[in-house]
Amino acid sequence: MNKIYSPKSETWSEILKRPTKTIDDIETTVKEIFKEVQKKGDEAVSKYTSIFDGIILEDYEVSQDEIVEAIALISDELKDAIQLAKSNIYKFHLAQKTERISVETTEGVNCWQEKRPIQKIGLYIPGGTAPLFSTVLMLAVPAAIAGSKEIVLCSPPDKNGKINPAILYAANLCGVTKIIKAGGIQAIAGMTFGTQSIPKVYKIFGPGNQFVTVAKQLATQYGVAIDMPAGPSELLVVADDSAVPAFVASDLLSQAEHGTDSQVILVSTSKELIDAVESEIQSQIAVLPRKAIAEKAIANSKLIYVENDAVALQLINEYGPEHFIICTNNDDFYVDGIYNAGSVFIGNYTPESAGDYASGTNHTLPTNGYAKNYSGVNLDSFMKSMTFQKITEKGILNIGKAIEVMAVAEGLQAHKNAVTLRLAQIEARE
Amino acid sequence: MNKIYSPKSETWSEILKRPTKTIDDIETTVKEIFKEVQKKGDEAVSKYTSIFDGIILEDYEVSQDEIVEAIALISDELKDAIQLAKSNIYKFHLAQKTERISVETTEGVNCWQEKRPIQKIGLYIPGGTAPLFSTVLMLAVPAAIAGSKEIVLCSPPDKNGKINPAILYAANLCGVTKIIKAGGIQAIAGMTFGTQSIPKVYKIFGPGNQFVTVAKQLATQYGVAIDMPAGPSELLVVADDSAVPAFVASDLLSQAEHGTDSQVILVSTSKELIDAVESEIQSQIAVLPRKAIAEKAIANSKLIYVENDAVALQLINEYGPEHFIICTNNDDFYVDGIYNAGSVFIGNYTPESAGDYASGTNHTLPTNGYAKNYSGVNLDSFMKSMTFQKITEKGILNIGKAIEVMAVAEGLQAHKNAVTLRLAQIEARE
Repeated sequence: MNKIYSPKSETWSEILKRPTKTIDDIETTVKEIFKEVQKKGDEAVSKYTSIFDGIILEDYEVSQDEIVEAIALISDELKDAIQLAKSNIYKFHLAQKTERISVETTEGVNCWQEKRPIQKIGLYIPGGTAPLFSTVLMLAVPAAIAGSKEIVLCSPPDKNGKINPAILYAANLCGVTKIIKAGGIQAIAGMTFGTQSIPKVYKIFGPGNQFVTVAKQLATQYGVAIDMPAGPSELLVVADDSAVPAFVASDLLSQAEHGTDSQVILVSTSKELIDAVESEIQSQIAVLPRKAIAEKAIANSKLIYVENDAVALQLINEYGPEHFIICTNNDDFYVDGIYNAGSVFIGNYTPESAGDYASGTNHTLPTNGYAKNYSGVNLDSFMKSMTFQKITEKGILNIGKAIEVMAVAEGLQAHKNAVTLRLAQIEARE
Repeated sequence: MNKIYSPKSETWSEILKRPTKTIDDIETTVKEIFKEVQKKGDEAVSKYTSIFDGIILEDYEVSQDEIVEAIALISDELKDAIQLAKSNIYKFHLAQKTERISVETTEGVNCWQEKRPIQKIGLYIPGGTAPLFSTVLMLAVPAAIAGSKEIVLCSPPDKNGKINPAILYAANLCGVTKIIKAGGIQAIAGMTFGTQSIPKVYKIFGPGNQFVTVAKQLATQYGVAIDMPAGPSELLVVADDSAVPAFVASDLLSQAEHGTDSQVILVSTSKELIDAVESEIQSQIAVLPRKAIAEKAIANSKLIYVENDAVALQLINEYGPEHFIICTNNDDFYVDGIYNAGSVFIGNYTPESAGDYASGTNHTLPTNGYAKNYSGVNLDSFMKSMTFQKITEKGILNIGKAIEVMAVAEGLQAHKNAVTLRLAQIEARE
């Protein structure tokens, strides 16, 4: 662990630097597979499923029988947990529904804004040993609330041609309309172009390895939107003597176990707290199953002492953490002043894992500094804001002149004509 | 003009195809200039301003004196027009402000969502003969309402080292905090990396030529967000016998004068209306100053007859027009059923140019089919949605078990520990 005392603000950007990755090597592979899927459809998906997942499938779509089978395999305890989480996520995202916003900006000029669902949504859920069924909840629940017509989920099959039952259980529970056994680049390419088995979608959500990340980026060049740019997960905790060191340590470690590239930062106005957290980390890490991963992430972690809350807040806003835990005597100061963070957790009894699973907030959040300019996934991520306007004769009489003057000043005569013709007709009638 | 009668739905995608452009040649140039600006800052900006704009500047920032000078150069008529437009844009975007959304998802689990401004905004406004001061209004007004701290505007200087006075007048009126005389790739690169004269920003908005478009795309690889992907402007009108042919023709022409690649489509259930609009276009186009441009766009335009409103709506949703004018006996059917459009204009007295300038809606809209998955610029474009949560002891007792079960099922033991430690402490105390 790197302990840093009162760093000067000129050094912050160096201290807070995130690791950068080059993706040039991967890009060539991703582009090739995209071209092949675009051209050959299912044939190419089948080829790469065979290469990467080691299986040849007759049918890519998960059948109703397989879902029934999956439901039977899930323990009641896990079902209860998933249902509680789903219920909280549903409540929090349902509350984000917005009404039509309607304004008569000038007499006779009626403008309104409405959000309408993106019609075709694609969800990508990685396979492997740790099945991210929680991410299914986080993406499918708001997509269903938004009213998206097609919610397609792709996840790679295992060697037996199956998808993890917890993923199937969650997908079925949350209104996914089609589950496809396809993973990696070929799945993203399939949802980008559409194949015989994989529907084309308008926006792709979900995490993945570096191949999936690059594939999602490439998909944007073919007119598909994506949830947000990807990066390693990160947590910044600000804590002082009011915090319980064991809790802070457990939160930092829950971030560290995600991957060796996870970013873990503690900022504190208390040197005692920093030391106490450090020793708690050492004792807690020893018994973790993912100890090897956590140790590497912790080795790169930073424990930063600063003089006061004002400096701390400035440093935190410069970093823009994905997850931000506040546990101080001065919580409101941080809550009010934080501008750049994905999701904020307040107080001793609010661990990050609550938001990861079950409190109701979304866990798909901007990382890698993107909290400065991107929202986390929320109901609006599945909708588009559209505007409407209806102008009466009175209305065009009121604003017509202004439009004409501005159009001429911008050199756009036909824009003016569209108004002039209407004004002339109204005047001729009067 | 291409008249197409009752096209079969299999042929729609071909008929509605937009032209695609390759950008590979430009990309190399853009990447080089980015690298140079990243490395050399103002020196590189100066070099390329000299090459592309033909001028060497002492100072890039527009001075207060220059603004005073610009204000004096604008006619009262244009000032009045701009102020009316600003007032309507302000009202419509102010109404889009949202309150904190707060939900106690489970007893003791308090979650809320708040929108906070993106702190640093960059606006790009092209130079040239047609000064897009209207775009300044469309971008600076909502940025100021959002509460963005820095609103930087870049626009290329003319041969005399000046920016068009209407742009300066609008920028000053709408709360732009800094106006920089820099254009093209070097301006976008400057706002991406920051130079001595150009502040680094978090999100870049605004139109531009193909160099600017590619530069904005490249900026996203350096952590900067952009408003939306670009493409040629487009208008689709659906009209029947209730429409005035001269008005429809004038709307189609106001789109056509934007550029030779503008997309202009009329869909109608009336063959008579199609013929009448066609002849109106011919007479109106003859007297347009931008006739040469409009003629090329009109030559590629499509007038499509379909049997009924249901088929028309399906075809329009497949196309996803940027601008969509509805002028029929059945307007509500289209208003209710349109899912893919940027902005919708309803009735005989609602020309597209109203929304381009002065009705209050935003004119920065998704084109090129992006209406299927992107919103037009609105107040939220300048904000980020952040979530907060505060959980009480009672709250973590209520959801702790679910988190533990889910974390274990995902193989993330440290995520479980963060809850287990807290539950143990509460239980020990009781």
